[in-house]
Formats: sequence, structure tokens, C-alpha cells
Amino acid sequence: MNERRQPVLGVLGGGQLARMLALAAAPLGVKTLVVDSSADACAGQVAPLAVADWADYAALEIFARQVDVVTFDFENVPAQSAHWLAERVAVFPAPGALAVAQDRLAEKTLFRECGLPTPDFRTVDTREQLDAALAAVGVPAILKTRRLGYDGKGQFRLRELADADAAWAALGAQASKHGLILEAFVAFERELSVLAVRGRDGDFRTWPLTGNWHVDGVLSMSLAPAPGIDLLQHRATELARTLAERLGYVGVFALELFVKDGELLGNEMAPRVHNSGHWTIEGAHTSQFENHVRAVLGLPLGDTGARGMSAMFNWIGDLPDASPVLQTVDAHWHDYGKQARPGRKVGHATVCAPDAERLTARLAEVAGLLGREAQVAPVLRHLTESFR
Amino acid sequence: MNERRQPVLGVLGGGQLARMLALAAAPLGVKTLVVDSSADACAGQVAPLAVADWADYAALEIFARQVDVVTFDFENVPAQSAHWLAERVAVFPAPGALAVAQDRLAEKTLFRECGLPTPDFRTVDTREQLDAALAAVGVPAILKTRRLGYDGKGQFRLRELADADAAWAALGAQASKHGLILEAFVAFERELSVLAVRGRDGDFRTWPLTGNWHVDGVLSMSLAPAPGIDLLQHRATELARTLAERLGYVGVFALELFVKDGELLGNEMAPRVHNSGHWTIEGAHTSQFENHVRAVLGLPLGDTGARGMSAMFNWIGDLPDASPVLQTVDAHWHDYGKQARPGRKVGHATVCAPDAERLTARLAEVAGLLGREAQVAPVLRHLTESFR
Ligand SMILES: Nc1ncnc2c1ncn2[C@@H]1O[C@H](COP(=O)(O)OP(=O)(O)OP(=O)(O)O)[C@@H](O)[C@H]1O
Ligand SMILES: Nc1ncnc2c1ncn2[C@@H]1O[C@H](COP(=O)(O)OP(=O)(O)OP(=O)(O)O)[C@@H](O)[C@H]1O
Repeated sequence: MNERRQPVLGVLGGGQLARMLALAAAPLGVKTLVVDSSADACAGQVAPLAVADWADYAALEIFARQVDVVTFDFENVPAQSAHWLAERVAVFPAPGALAVAQDRLAEKTLFRECGLPTPDFRTVDTREQLDAALAAVGVPAILKTRRLGYDGKGQFRLRELADADAAWAALGAQASKHGLILEAFVAFERELSVLAVRGRDGDFRTWPLTGNWHVDGVLSMSLAPAPGIDLLQHRATELARTLAERLGYVGVFALELFVKDGELLGNEMAPRVHNSGHWTIEGAHTSQFENHVRAVLGLPLGDTGARGMSAMFNWIGDLPDASPVLQTVDAHWHDYGKQARPGRKVGHATVCAPDAERLTARLAEVAGLLGREAQVAPVLRHLTESFR
Repeated sequence: MNERRQPVLGVLGGGQLARMLALAAAPLGVKTLVVDSSADACAGQVAPLAVADWADYAALEIFARQVDVVTFDFENVPAQSAHWLAERVAVFPAPGALAVAQDRLAEKTLFRECGLPTPDFRTVDTREQLDAALAAVGVPAILKTRRLGYDGKGQFRLRELADADAAWAALGAQASKHGLILEAFVAFERELSVLAVRGRDGDFRTWPLTGNWHVDGVLSMSLAPAPGIDLLQHRATELARTLAERLGYVGVFALELFVKDGELLGNEMAPRVHNSGHWTIEGAHTSQFENHVRAVLGLPLGDTGARGMSAMFNWIGDLPDASPVLQTVDAHWHDYGKQARPGRKVGHATVCAPDAERLTARLAEVAGLLGREAQVAPVLRHLTESFR
């Protein structure tokens, strides 16, 4: 018999997304090679790790020769590195698609072109433009960097016009480098995300819509399938499909949405596996991680249906005691193997159940044992309304 | 905040069981370190691998200092190495329990002491004893090495008394080294295994009984929960519990059983995660791999209930085309990352469904696409009878 060569997936960035990609790649017989500038990047616990800066072309050269396809754990990989790699090896999502998702202006422009309205916004490059933008958009509003924002970083909320100085003090220095954008603050009814995957052959699928709750701009809880979304699922899927086809996108992405007056508004697109899709590991027939690996390697995509209902707790800063989760039926613990640090995503837990009622009971119990009643409260409220 | 230290699980042996243990350990925040004499042991793709012989005490010394607990991927680790390690670090299952499961005589003796009958058997050390044993046990019979057998290796089936010479020619040389045992060949109605786990605190659980089909002494298909076992489940669980408590066993083990005239007979005990429990990765709330990691590290055990029904195909020698499995709803591919080789376990696939009827349909379809109708046939027959 011939020696077989297993395909190798290269991942730029070695955080928890790379870690979960590597764990999903292994059963497919796919090896993973991770590049990160830090020697203790947590993905290095489950896959070989090359320690190198993303701008270290000598290291990228070696990396490119060792892998069959390159993908990202982090959307803010320098566009230049992505382009440089794409001349040498298959890169998915393609650098062009990545570039759109890296820029809030390009992203929102694309959303509108695809028929997805967005909150009112203005670009801001100078202090004067901030005043003009505030006059047009009104308050409350959010000033955001156009590039390099994540987890609510690079954002400033303005309650009143008088907050303009403070906002400029916080973000003005970044105006010339990354550009800024002022968005109307949307008093949304709820936040949803649609996780979608597109294969190299154009096959396209979405997972059921996920409901999300943020605290201080960082995801705190997700619930899927989001109850009461029958009317929105089809529209969200078609919007995601249109976006993916326009971009020639390959792999998993998340489209983050607000629901306002029952209508969808586009917030942003994350060109990668996404925190709001972690429930798919146990809650769907195929996880976002497995389907991303399949998509970028050109394997057939797996079924994206949900097994029942799932809720995810995000662990920010440090991990609570694992025991309550370990002891609960169909609850699943995910420790990313990171050091605790304020604001850092260090793990998550997913609680699954066959239906909304049993999920409610299980969630309430786990949250009580964890002392996380406040974190779970909006989800329980939402669930209870949904089956009343 | 204090630097955290993640627990490290040491695994002796770096095959697919170590690989799947490492994949299950990671989400628990547990690091894995594998020792294997081969540099391309497949577990090395997902965890650090120390290349060393099991009798290399200098290497074991370093290993023992790097890990918090040691377990096995292979039950035939030399008892001496296990004992030596146990003087330096926690080893589960304990060397004493391992020793019993390594010796077919000790194992069968224990089964009988625990109230589990076994096929009639005699130990055989000489050619004359083989004749005497055959006279007592009758034909058909199986001559087996007492130690170091696995996957039907070290076995010879005797159809008639005249086969004694051939049997002795095949295994006689091993009589003085490992000892031999002659067993009556049981015309069983079916084969079952009970997967069980016992924690460091004595907590004990079993997964639903699994039905197994072997070809040439090697597992070919499993089905779980085995249909029509209501009457046997309780007895199998209690037998497994008795065995585990007698041995002070910690971790997962499999008790392989024959059903003859509706009664259980003990075949053997595998002191480790077991091939017939691979369906638990997707088919149970907690997999055998995760619960083994939890047990040996002293974490709470997870729920062992099944999600629905599951069937597993074993891939022996080489892998079929993955596409039919990748394209089937709730079917899961497991490529161990090994080179193809006749008789080698290189992967498996698990097909899950909410009930027996849907499992039957899904299995028949996948098997058809794979060209594996013969492999699946006994399982389909069994399933069809069960819901008729
Ligand atoms: N225009 C807005 N109106 C109301 N809330 C907003 C608005 N923009 C952002 N938010 C809130 O802040 C959260 C994070 O904002 P955004 O998605 O822009 O940040 P990010 O840093 O890119 O985060 P992510 O990690 O989700 O990519 C949103 O999910 C939402 O809860
Ligand atoms: N006494 C017996 N009567 C009938 N069939 C038997 C007998 N012993 C073994 N077999 C058949 O051969 C298979 C393998 O035998 P056994 O479990 O002894 O082998 P092993 O090499 O230890 O395999 P394993 O990998 O399952 O541990 C059994 O599952 C059964 O199908």
C-alpha cells in the first residue's frame, strides 16, 4: 500500500478558536499546524505550534510549505500577510473577503448593497467630523474604530452630545491610523447571529439562528435555536447566502444582527468561526469547527441541524468551579487552557436539552449551583416567554 | 491572580485510544503526555509524545515527574513498569487490577467468584495437557494464550480433536512463556459488552449495553443501546460493579459477555476504554474517553445515558471513502491518522439516530454508499427483528 499523506490545516493565530478547530480536524484525519507569536498560545496544547510573528515572512514561507490550506483564528491578521500567503498556498477565507470584514465601512456598505439595512452611521476622521456625524446620527451613539476592534474593544458609547470630547480623547488618536465610524445606538429588541458555512464548491448552509446577550460589549450567553424566529430564519439565511456569494466566501462566518421593530439590521460579519457558534459542538449534528475544516479543505459539508436546544455560558476573566456543569446531564465543559486575566475569554459551557422546558430547568439549576443567576437571567426570561 | 497549572494526564501507549483520550481531555483543561516506542504513534498528532520503550526506566522517571496521573492505552504494558510507576505517581487502573485483566486465568477465576459463569476452560502448559483439556472441554474449542492476546491474536480454533497438533504448532511455543488456556467454543446467541466507569471516590456508572459483532476475532460492528436487553442490563451492571469493587478499579473498563440460552457468560475484561464504546463519543451524554479522564483525575463522573441509538463501523486495514459518512445526518467520521496495514484498526464511523427505525434506514443507506452491505447485514437483521 502507498504511504498516505494526511492533509495539513494551517491556522494563523493560536487562541481558543484555533484550539477547537484542531480538535475538530483530528477525527477527520486532518493535521493542524498553528502559527502564533506567543509560545504559550493555548492551541499549542493540542497541535504543533510555530512561534512567529505574522509579519515574519521567513517563518511564513516555511509554514506555507508545510500546510495544504491556511485559515484564521483571528480576523485582524494583517491583510498583507494574508495576500502574501495566498500567492503560495490556498487561503480561506480569501484575503479579499477578509479585508471587507476587517473594515466596518466596507462591511456596512456591503450589507446595504445586499439589502440588509444597518444602523445609521457616518465615517469620522477628524474632531469636526465627529460633531457633524453626531448631528446627523443623533444620540445615543457609538464611536468605533473601523478596523481591529473585537469584543467591544475600540468602542466608546456616547449618551449625549457633551460626550464627544471624552469619545475623542479615547479614540481620536486612532482616527488617522484605522479610521473611525459613528453608529446610531440601536435600542434593539434582541440580538441574533446567523452562523453560516460555504464550501469550495459553493454548497451553502446555515445553522439555526442563535440568540445572543452581551455584557460590556462581550458575548455573555447564547441560546439556540433562538425561540420564535421562524419568520426571521429564512431572511437571515438568504442574506448570509447573498453576502457569502458576493464575497466568494469559503468557510464559516457569523453575521451578527439586531432585531428592531421585528426587522433585521446588520451589525457586523465575523469572517471565522464565532463565539456565538460554540453551542454547535454538542448542540448540532456538525459543529462550526468541523464544517469550517471541511469547507476549507474541500470536503463535503455536514448537516447543520440542531439536536435539541442549547445554551452557552461564556467564561470571561476566569473559570468558575466546573463541578456543577460536569454533574449536569448533557452539559459540557470547555476550558481553553489559558491563564486567567480580566476580560479574557477563558472557557465556556454548553447546556443541552431536548426542548425549551427542560433546557430552562437545567439552566436554572446549573446557574444556581454556579452562582451565575444574573448571567443566565435574560436567557431564562426569554425562554419562559417563548413557551408560555 | 495566581498562575494556574493544568493537570497533566500521562498515557502509556500512543495508539487511537490515547488519541481519543487526549481529544477528550483537552476541553476539560487537562493536558496529555503520551509515551510510545514509535515516533509516529498516532496520538502524537494531538498531544506531546515522548518516544521511549516501556522498560526504559530513565525515560519513565522523567515522564513520572511531568504528569499528575498515569493511565494506559494498551492493557499489555509490562506489569513491572506499571508497578515501578505506581511507586512514583498515581496510576489508574492500579497495577493489581491491570494484572488480573492481563491474565485470562485470573480474570475467569474472578468472574466465577463474582457469580458470572464463564465458558468451560482448562489451563494448558504442555502438549499432554492439551489432550486432557480437549477431552474435558470437548470440541469445538479455542486455544488462547493466557497473556498478551488482543484482537483475536494468540488464538487458535479447534473444530475437531484432530486439530490439536495444528493448534500446538501455532501456540505451543508460547505455553512456557505466557501459558495457554483451552476454552469451550460457545455457540452464543449474541455478544454484548458493558462499558463501565468507576471514580476515585467509588462512584460507579455503566453505559447502556452494547451489542457487538466480530469478524475473525476482531470487532466489526457495535450497536447501542443493544435492543431487547432490558432483562440483562441490570444483571450486567451489577456484575460490572462487583468486579470493579473487588479490584478497587478506577477508570473505564469493558466487560465482554456472551448471551447463551438467554444467560450471560463472561468472556473477558478490557481494563481500559474499549473499541465497543466508541459510539459513546456522539451517542452518549458523556463519552467513555471523557469519563475515563474524569475518573482517573478524580473529577465528578458524567451522565452515561444514550442520546438515541448508535451504530459503529470499525475500519480495519484501510479506510473507505469518507464522503458517504460525511454526507449523512448525524454520522461521524473518525480517522486515526494511521498508515493502512492489513488487520490494523485505522478508524471508525458512528451513525446516530433518534430511534431504531431511523437508525436502520440511515445505516442501510450509508452502508450501501460505502459498499459495506456485508459488514452491516447482521446489525440490520438484529435491528429489524427488534422493532418488528
Ligand atoms: N450600534 C449599536 N447599537 C446598539 N448596540 C450595539 C451597537 N454596536 C454594538 N453594540 C453592542 O456591542 C456589542 C459588540 O459590538 P460589535 O459587534 O461592534 O463589537 P466587536 O468588538 O466587533 O465584537 P465581536 O467580538 O462581537 O466581533 C454588540 O453585540 C452589541 O451588543
Ligand atoms: N469461547 C469462545 N466461544 C465463542 N467465541 C469466542 C470465544 N472466545 C472468543 N470468541 C470470539 O472471538 C472474539 C475475540 O476473542 P477474545 O475477546 O478472547 O479476544 P481478544 O484477542 O482478547 O480480543 P479483544 O480485542 O476483544 O480484547 C470474541 O469476541 C468472540 O467473538
